[in-house]
Amino acid sequence: MSIFNMPLIIQDATAVEVLAESVKGDMGMLWMLISGILVFFMQAGFFLVESGMTDSKNAVNIAMKNFLDIAVGSLAFWFIGYSLMYGADASGGFLHWGGFTFSQGAADLFFQTVFAATAATIVSGAIAGRTKYTTYAIFSIIMTALIYPIAGGWEWNGGWLNNTDIMPAEFIDFAGSSIVHSVGGWAALVAAWMVGPRIGKYLNGKPIEMHGHNQMYATLGVFILWLGWFGFNGGSQLAWGGADSDAASQVVLVTNLAASAGALGALLFTWFKNGKPNLGMTLNGALAGLVSITAGCGNMTEGGAVLAGLVGGLLVVLSIGFVEKTLKVDDAVGAISVHGVAGAWGTLVIGLWGVDGDAGIGLFNGGGAAQLGAQAIGVLAYAVWSIGLSYIFLLILKKTIGLRVSEAEEIAGLDISEHGSLAYPGKRQREID
Amino acid sequence: MSIFNMPLIIQDATAVEVLAESVKGDMGMLWMLISGILVFFMQAGFFLVESGMTDSKNAVNIAMKNFLDIAVGSLAFWFIGYSLMYGADASGGFLHWGGFTFSQGAADLFFQTVFAATAATIVSGAIAGRTKYTTYAIFSIIMTALIYPIAGGWEWNGGWLNNTDIMPAEFIDFAGSSIVHSVGGWAALVAAWMVGPRIGKYLNGKPIEMHGHNQMYATLGVFILWLGWFGFNGGSQLAWGGADSDAASQVVLVTNLAASAGALGALLFTWFKNGKPNLGMTLNGALAGLVSITAGCGNMTEGGAVLAGLVGGLLVVLSIGFVEKTLKVDDAVGAISVHGVAGAWGTLVIGLWGVDGDAGIGLFNGGGAAQLGAQAIGVLAYAVWSIGLSYIFLLILKKTIGLRVSEAEEIAGLDISEHGSLAYPGKRQREID
Amino acid sequence: MSIFNMPLIIQDATAVEVLAESVKGDMGMLWMLISGILVFFMQAGFFLVESGMTDSKNAVNIAMKNFLDIAVGSLAFWFIGYSLMYGADASGGFLHWGGFTFSQGAADLFFQTVFAATAATIVSGAIAGRTKYTTYAIFSIIMTALIYPIAGGWEWNGGWLNNTDIMPAEFIDFAGSSIVHSVGGWAALVAAWMVGPRIGKYLNGKPIEMHGHNQMYATLGVFILWLGWFGFNGGSQLAWGGADSDAASQVVLVTNLAASAGALGALLFTWFKNGKPNLGMTLNGALAGLVSITAGCGNMTEGGAVLAGLVGGLLVVLSIGFVEKTLKVDDAVGAISVHGVAGAWGTLVIGLWGVDGDAGIGLFNGGGAAQLGAQAIGVLAYAVWSIGLSYIFLLILKKTIGLRVSEAEEIAGLDISEHGSLAYPGKRQREID
Repeated sequence: MSIFNMPLIIQDATAVEVLAESVKGDMGMLWMLISGILVFFMQAGFFLVESGMTDSKNAVNIAMKNFLDIAVGSLAFWFIGYSLMYGADASGGFLHWGGFTFSQGAADLFFQTVFAATAATIVSGAIAGRTKYTTYAIFSIIMTALIYPIAGGWEWNGGWLNNTDIMPAEFIDFAGSSIVHSVGGWAALVAAWMVGPRIGKYLNGKPIEMHGHNQMYATLGVFILWLGWFGFNGGSQLAWGGADSDAASQVVLVTNLAASAGALGALLFTWFKNGKPNLGMTLNGALAGLVSITAGCGNMTEGGAVLAGLVGGLLVVLSIGFVEKTLKVDDAVGAISVHGVAGAWGTLVIGLWGVDGDAGIGLFNGGGAAQLGAQAIGVLAYAVWSIGLSYIFLLILKKTIGLRVSEAEEIAGLDISEHGSLAYPGKRQREID
Repeated sequence: MSIFNMPLIIQDATAVEVLAESVKGDMGMLWMLISGILVFFMQAGFFLVESGMTDSKNAVNIAMKNFLDIAVGSLAFWFIGYSLMYGADASGGFLHWGGFTFSQGAADLFFQTVFAATAATIVSGAIAGRTKYTTYAIFSIIMTALIYPIAGGWEWNGGWLNNTDIMPAEFIDFAGSSIVHSVGGWAALVAAWMVGPRIGKYLNGKPIEMHGHNQMYATLGVFILWLGWFGFNGGSQLAWGGADSDAASQVVLVTNLAASAGALGALLFTWFKNGKPNLGMTLNGALAGLVSITAGCGNMTEGGAVLAGLVGGLLVVLSIGFVEKTLKVDDAVGAISVHGVAGAWGTLVIGLWGVDGDAGIGLFNGGGAAQLGAQAIGVLAYAVWSIGLSYIFLLILKKTIGLRVSEAEEIAGLDISEHGSLAYPGKRQREID
Repeated sequence: MSIFNMPLIIQDATAVEVLAESVKGDMGMLWMLISGILVFFMQAGFFLVESGMTDSKNAVNIAMKNFLDIAVGSLAFWFIGYSLMYGADASGGFLHWGGFTFSQGAADLFFQTVFAATAATIVSGAIAGRTKYTTYAIFSIIMTALIYPIAGGWEWNGGWLNNTDIMPAEFIDFAGSSIVHSVGGWAALVAAWMVGPRIGKYLNGKPIEMHGHNQMYATLGVFILWLGWFGFNGGSQLAWGGADSDAASQVVLVTNLAASAGALGALLFTWFKNGKPNLGMTLNGALAGLVSITAGCGNMTEGGAVLAGLVGGLLVVLSIGFVEKTLKVDDAVGAISVHGVAGAWGTLVIGLWGVDGDAGIGLFNGGGAAQLGAQAIGVLAYAVWSIGLSYIFLLILKKTIGLRVSEAEEIAGLDISEHGSLAYPGKRQREID
């Protein structure tokens, strides 16, 4: 198959075509592998953001949840998830199956594995500080092995969302604003709502700010996530060579622009609103900018990407307030807003000012409403699926082993009660031993 | 243009040449994109070095400045800076312009953007702990949109420094010892001098050591910067394939050797001088080694690179003392010495023992004085430009909105006074709310 | 040699073959360079794991040891080590030599350099908290310049371990479970035994747990090591293109699976054993999983890799207890178990269920006992070499400058006594100045 391995007996022009295809395949695999490695590193970013934005008495628990996400996630997705996502169509684009330990090549399996681990991790932060480790462990497996991959196949395995017999247009979600981020974000919403707020979060129905313990970690974490996102979005081109090189480079460029605009939007918004530019919101703004361009990074002009990210950065500030004050859901790190809301926004914006090459496909650039309709259907489908299945599985977990630790355990901190060690051991640790 | 996209009707030998060029272009783009991603990550390194080497009461402010550098920098360089740097010659190699949102390809624009953000960030550390956030924000835009790109075009867009009608030889600055680092370093000098020392830095004219708050952050930051520098220098080959692969690999190799020699130089120097090897100086020595090879990484033997880095590591220790004690300029992180002084040294050393392939071009290896002259002119030109423009813009800022926060704000820390939150929130944060 | 540099006068089919080879070489160099950059970053991971798992009063010392490893290691390996490893055979595959500053290309030299620095670093953690900096510095040079490269040549330079005249089969150690990790691990064993336990580690012969100071650093460190290991193992393919692309991708995939299984194994083991899943052991389990697949990542099925990693994760928990309680050797970070024991396991497992393409070469998959014999000989040879030479050199150091700081210095902490500064300076630092 590869020209490097075949005897070059076809000494004519065909050999050039074979070589061109072979090299393109090799370069594409290289880019996907490097991108996958970058996406893997996002786990470290999530760990730092989530632990930094929450109390130090729960930081070991967050580390243990992140290790579980990547460890169990990698194994579960390898064993069953990838097959459910990229196997053969089993029912008109809704279900796919390829057998256990199914694979279409190691580079692709690895790349898709680290994506799956990301979806699970999003839930972790929202329910920090009061959720049972066992419960989280089981839900993390369900997320990576079932909820995410089945829904992922709808779009990325040529499933029903690409079927223009039932859709007004082919749904577009290049790197997963909906498939990864809003699926994770809506699951986080259900989980945070069902598990209930942390003790002390609400006083007479009004939210009390519960500070994180280390904004330096959160900042480093966002830089690492931003870094990893270049692989997340850029690698989703799934190829390199010729037009694909230009396209993937453009994806990286607009990803950086949208993140910048998201950070700047939240920074300026808090500055005008509160008189001081706020770090926590700037960090969430950068992430929201990244999520906002994840679906459309192959279908946005540079200016459009800046605008998409900017709106994402403003939206996330409003949404965090809405979730906390109006919905009265305690999301410890803003995951619902960053991944769920900005994920929906990033999917819809393609229908507003998206492009396909030089042609406008959005409502505001002459593309009509078909694409916006397709995007809305996709957003809705992923929301219904994620909310529905998360609700069912979490309800089962609630009725059986329970979602939440005891009040005493929560006050002591999950690090001690669930793991028996502290993030920053010292004298206090010796008392515990 | 790309063979992957053209119908392969030219079934003769020309197709091989076309494919060779096409693949070379694709590989070059891949290397530049990956390098740009590594350079992006340097922002995290700068954040950690600067916050670790300064007081914890100003760490949020440093994070906010770093986010501003990359966010505003990315947008400003995309909108105007890249055009001023890589647009068409507008005045004999001094000014360039290509229109707003000018681009010569996404991979190049992205790579150059993260370079521009670096130049701005250098200033941040030097003036930590007492500078107004608004002022810094405006200066950061000016740096990325005007000061850096205009001067960058002099060399990297075939500007006047390459013109042998007016220069004794073509100026060499492969990856920006002068263009990025000393431009940033001299701006830091002007800014630190104009904004004045932190309260408590000088007692009866003698400098008091003001410790950072976390040397672990600073250490991690230097490792990240060293990592990113492989992209900074290696990616500046701007190509991959054939001789370019060898050249870029050699650049990475000598970059690592010079950094090692710089770290070792400073480590041993402080050991002999003070009886104990010092971490802070070793970190600055590694960075100085990296800056010292940035201009010459394409024009140095391996032994020459070791020597260049070693001298850089010694120089930085001497220079930090000189800036602090003799100039009485309070540079909170040693940025003037690491980037300005080592940047000048790294540019000049090409004229001392630089090579061009197998031929010596330096004074000490039979190359005559022409190259040294050219390097000196370049060093001087970038110093004059950066000092001049920084002075003008900072003077305007001083006369209008002011450079410095009030004494009470400085003592309270910029995190509280400028951003209303702490790096390590806890009980004290709750009192502030 | 490269088609990009040669005039394309050979306008016939040969040009296609030349291009194919040239591009393959270019892509291989690119993958090796990127992998080397990832391996370099492992130094930051080691720094974080080692400093996080030990006392804060010795954290600066650990940073200084890591800088020494990469700085002195890079220079020593460039000057002499690479030549001893990859030079011409000088004595039947036991000794090699190629002259000072020998090189077979910059990408390879760089890649091998960062490997060498890793071997030295492994020793650092085990003997943390009581070893003289001077002594460590000298031993680090010996490790990178002599012990590691000479032994590395036995296998990776076609040395005696590949000679089937004296071996039952060719020894397999793809990326260095034995060559890098167990050589480092056994040297750590000798060093930790000779330098003796930290004050307070044993009370009436029973080990007292000495907690680290920051499990967040250790967690981030393991994520960085896991990340870097993709380059460590994947880059050891030393090529890209055609079958090499598939092979290197498969290496990355199984590396991730084994790390996941190792983390999960240790997590579950501590959960069942102590009732609570333990973070420190999970971290060591992930690392043990990585070490366990390092030799066999090119000779394992996916299922075999999962099993190898899982056993590694269980082994490391048992081994840490054995070293501490039975051998009574104080290994501050578990390096002997993670690198030595898991390194031996990872080498041997190829003889148990390893594959070569589709053929089984292990005892349990029909491959007979020859490979297991070869693996055992290799494990033994590297153990004897590393233990023997480490013992000799450390004995000389003990008899001359001494291995250990004074009791007063140890209690005060090495940061103050050896380096005169603190990891977290503040009021206490000012008292010291």
